[in-house]
Amino acid sequence: MSATDLTDHPFGLHHLPYGAFSLPGDAGDVRLAVRVGDEALDLRAAGAGTPWAEALRGPTLNPLLELGPQAWAGLRGWLQETLADDGGRRALAEHLHPVDGIRLHLPLEVRDYVDFYASEQHATNVGRIFRPDGDALTPNWKHLPIGYHGRSSTVVVSGTDVVRPTGQRRGKDDPAPVFGPSVRLDIEAELGFVVGGSTPVGSRVTVDEAEHHLFGVALFNDWSARDIQAWEYVPLGPFLGKSFASSVAAWVTPMAALAAARVPLPAQDPEPLPYLLGSGGSLFGLDITLEVRLNGTVVSRPPYRGMYWSPTQMLAHLTVNGAALSSGDLFASGTVSGDRPDQRGSLLELTWSGAEPITLEDGTTRTFLQDGDTVTITATAPGPGGAPVGLAEVTGTVRPAV
Amino acid sequence: MSATDLTDHPFGLHHLPYGAFSLPGDAGDVRLAVRVGDEALDLRAAGAGTPWAEALRGPTLNPLLELGPQAWAGLRGWLQETLADDGGRRALAEHLHPVDGIRLHLPLEVRDYVDFYASEQHATNVGRIFRPDGDALTPNWKHLPIGYHGRSSTVVVSGTDVVRPTGQRRGKDDPAPVFGPSVRLDIEAELGFVVGGSTPVGSRVTVDEAEHHLFGVALFNDWSARDIQAWEYVPLGPFLGKSFASSVAAWVTPMAALAAARVPLPAQDPEPLPYLLGSGGSLFGLDITLEVRLNGTVVSRPPYRGMYWSPTQMLAHLTVNGAALSSGDLFASGTVSGDRPDQRGSLLELTWSGAEPITLEDGTTRTFLQDGDTVTITATAPGPGGAPVGLAEVTGTVRPAV
Repeated sequence: MSATDLTDHPFGLHHLPYGAFSLPGDAGDVRLAVRVGDEALDLRAAGAGTPWAEALRGPTLNPLLELGPQAWAGLRGWLQETLADDGGRRALAEHLHPVDGIRLHLPLEVRDYVDFYASEQHATNVGRIFRPDGDALTPNWKHLPIGYHGRSSTVVVSGTDVVRPTGQRRGKDDPAPVFGPSVRLDIEAELGFVVGGSTPVGSRVTVDEAEHHLFGVALFNDWSARDIQAWEYVPLGPFLGKSFASSVAAWVTPMAALAAARVPLPAQDPEPLPYLLGSGGSLFGLDITLEVRLNGTVVSRPPYRGMYWSPTQMLAHLTVNGAALSSGDLFASGTVSGDRPDQRGSLLELTWSGAEPITLEDGTTRTFLQDGDTVTITATAPGPGGAPVGLAEVTGTVRPAV
Repeated sequence: MSATDLTDHPFGLHHLPYGAFSLPGDAGDVRLAVRVGDEALDLRAAGAGTPWAEALRGPTLNPLLELGPQAWAGLRGWLQETLADDGGRRALAEHLHPVDGIRLHLPLEVRDYVDFYASEQHATNVGRIFRPDGDALTPNWKHLPIGYHGRSSTVVVSGTDVVRPTGQRRGKDDPAPVFGPSVRLDIEAELGFVVGGSTPVGSRVTVDEAEHHLFGVALFNDWSARDIQAWEYVPLGPFLGKSFASSVAAWVTPMAALAAARVPLPAQDPEPLPYLLGSGGSLFGLDITLEVRLNGTVVSRPPYRGMYWSPTQMLAHLTVNGAALSSGDLFASGTVSGDRPDQRGSLLELTWSGAEPITLEDGTTRTFLQDGDTVTITATAPGPGGAPVGLAEVTGTVRPAV
C-alpha cells in the first residue's frame, strides 16, 4: 500500500498499533511489530540502529513501556515519518509481512491486572438485577472508581479459545452447592489500558501525572461465569468467576492515536475528592464505539464516551495508597454499557439475567453463551481529519468444559 | 558451626530455607542462598557444576521453582549431604557468609498473588464485628476456600518500611467521604505458600497434584487499612485497603522441612465437594505456632494448626476453573486466629475493632498501629526428632504517610 492509501485506512499511519508476531513454522521466534495498514512491520529488524533498538529486541512491549512517554513519542514520530516517505518505506519493505500470514501473540507480559467498574449504566443495571429492592448503585460508587485485582496469568491474546470454566454454584433453590461447568457464561465488553513507567512502593501518581503512564488501549473481553461469581463473591469479591480467562486484543493502540477521540467526561456529581480531579485538565473520556458480535450477529454497540471515570482518575486512585506501578500493568474499564438496551456490554444486561433471550441472525436464541459460540468485539474512534481509528478486534470461541 | 551444632538449630540442616542476598557495597549483585544456621551459603557459587546450576544463577527462585519437586528434592538432598560432611563443608566454606553481614532481598519475582480467608475463627470474628446482627460466616464459607487476588508488585521483603496509606474513608457519621492517612492501620498474621511448576490456562490442579506445586512457606503480614477497606470493598472486594504493602519473610522454608509438622485438618462439616477432597490423603494442616510482637511485646500467638482449609485445597480450588499457575505464584492463608483471645492474628480482632485497647510493655496502649510501630512475626514448628524449625521473621516498621 502507498502512503496515500494508508491515510484513510483504520490501521493507517495515524494509528500504528503495536503487537507481537511470529512467522509460520517458527512460533518460538516472537518479535514486536507495528501494524501499518494490512501489514506488520518487524520492529526488531526495522528498529535496529535506532535509539529504541534495545527496547524493541525482545518478544514483549515491556522494555519499551519502561522507557516512558518521550521514547514512545520519539519512536512513533520516527515510524510515521519514515513510513510516509516512499524511500523510507522501500528501505523497510523487506521487514513488512502481510497480517494474514502471521501469528499474533500476547504483546506484553502482564504484571498487575486490575479491572474497574466505571460505567454508571452497567453498575446500575447490575444493581437492579441483583438487588432489585435496594439502591442500584452502592454508596461509594460515585466517590471512587471501584476496582479489584484480577489474575494476570490468565490474560490471553485475542483468538485464544476459552474453555468453559467449572466450579461451584448455588441457585436460590439449591439446598447445597452444585459442581459442574458454568451454565451462565458471559462476556464483558471493556477497554484495557496498558501502563508504562514503573513507580516505587510508597509513591503516588496524580491525575495529571497519570497521562505519562498511559501507553495505549486494547479491546478487552472479561469473560465471566455469573453463576460461579454469584456464589463466591461475598465478601471478598470476584475470584474464580473471572480468573479462567480474560482476552485482550493483539494490537495495542497508542494513546497518541486517540487524540481526536478525546471528549469531556460526563458530569461528575457529587464532585469527587481533589485527588481525583487534579488540575482538571487531565480528565477525559474517549469517543470510542464498540461493536459486539455473537456468531456474526451484532448484539450491542456500547459507547465508551459515556464512561463515568477518566482513565487518569482510575490510575490516580489505584496508586493513591502508595501502590507501585510496573511497566506491563494492565487495567480495564469494566463493562461498557450505554443508556439504550442495545448498548449493553454483557449478556447479563442484554438478556436481563436470562429473562429476555436475544435472537441471532441464524434464528437461534441466547441467554448466556453456548459451547462453540464466538464473541468478537471491535471498535472505531475518530482520528485526525476524519480518518477512522479502528481498534483491533478481541475475539474468542467457547470450548466445552474439560 | 559444626554439623553437630546445627542439629538443634532452628535454621539447621533439617530446615535449610532459601533466600536472596547481596554483600555490603554491592546491593546490585543479588544471589540466591540457603540459610545454614547463622550463615548463608551462596548458591550461585556453591551450585556451580551441579545439576541445578542454571536455576541457581539468577537473583530469584523462579527458575528453581519451575524445575519442580524432583529437582527441589535433589538439591535439598545434595545440600544436606554435603553440609553434614566435614570435608564437604570445608569445600564450601568460602561461600558461607554470616547472616548478620548480608542484605536480604525478595527471593522471588511474585507472579499472581492470592490471599485466602481460611481461618474459621478469624472469619467468625470479622463477621461478628462487621455484621453483628447477621450470621458470622457467609453461606459459602464452609463450602469453598474464599480468596481474592492481591497486588503482586507491592509484596515487599521483610524489613521494608511500610508507608501509612492514604485514601478515602467514610465513618457511619460522616456525611461524605474523608481523605487522608488511614487511622485504622492493621496487620494480618498469615502464612504464605510459594508455588512452583507452571500449568497452562484451561487445565486444573487436583488436591492430590497440589502437593507437587507447593515449594515452601514464608511468614506473611498482609497490612490492612481497615477504614479504607470498609468504605471500598462492597461489592468487588478489598483493593486499596490492602494493595499498599504486603510483607513476606526473606527466607522460604521448604515444605520438606515441615514433614514432622503435618497434622490432620479440623473436621470439615459439611463435607466439601469431591474436588476439594481428592483421595483424602493430601489434606493436612500444619502445626506452626506464630508469635506476633508489637514493639517487642508479644500480643498474640496464633496457631496455624486450626486452619480450616488445607493448602492443597486452596490450590485445587484456585485452579478448578482452569486458571493457570506460574512459578512464582504466591498464595497466603488469610489471617491466622485461634479460639482464644490471645491467639488472634489482627488488631481488629485483638482490640475488637478498637473497643478494647491492648497495653504494651512500655505502658502505652494501642487500638491500631501508630507511626513508628514495628510489627514482627515469627513462628516455630516441630522438626525431625524434636528439633525445632524456626520460620524466618517477617518484620516491618510503619512510616508516616507521605
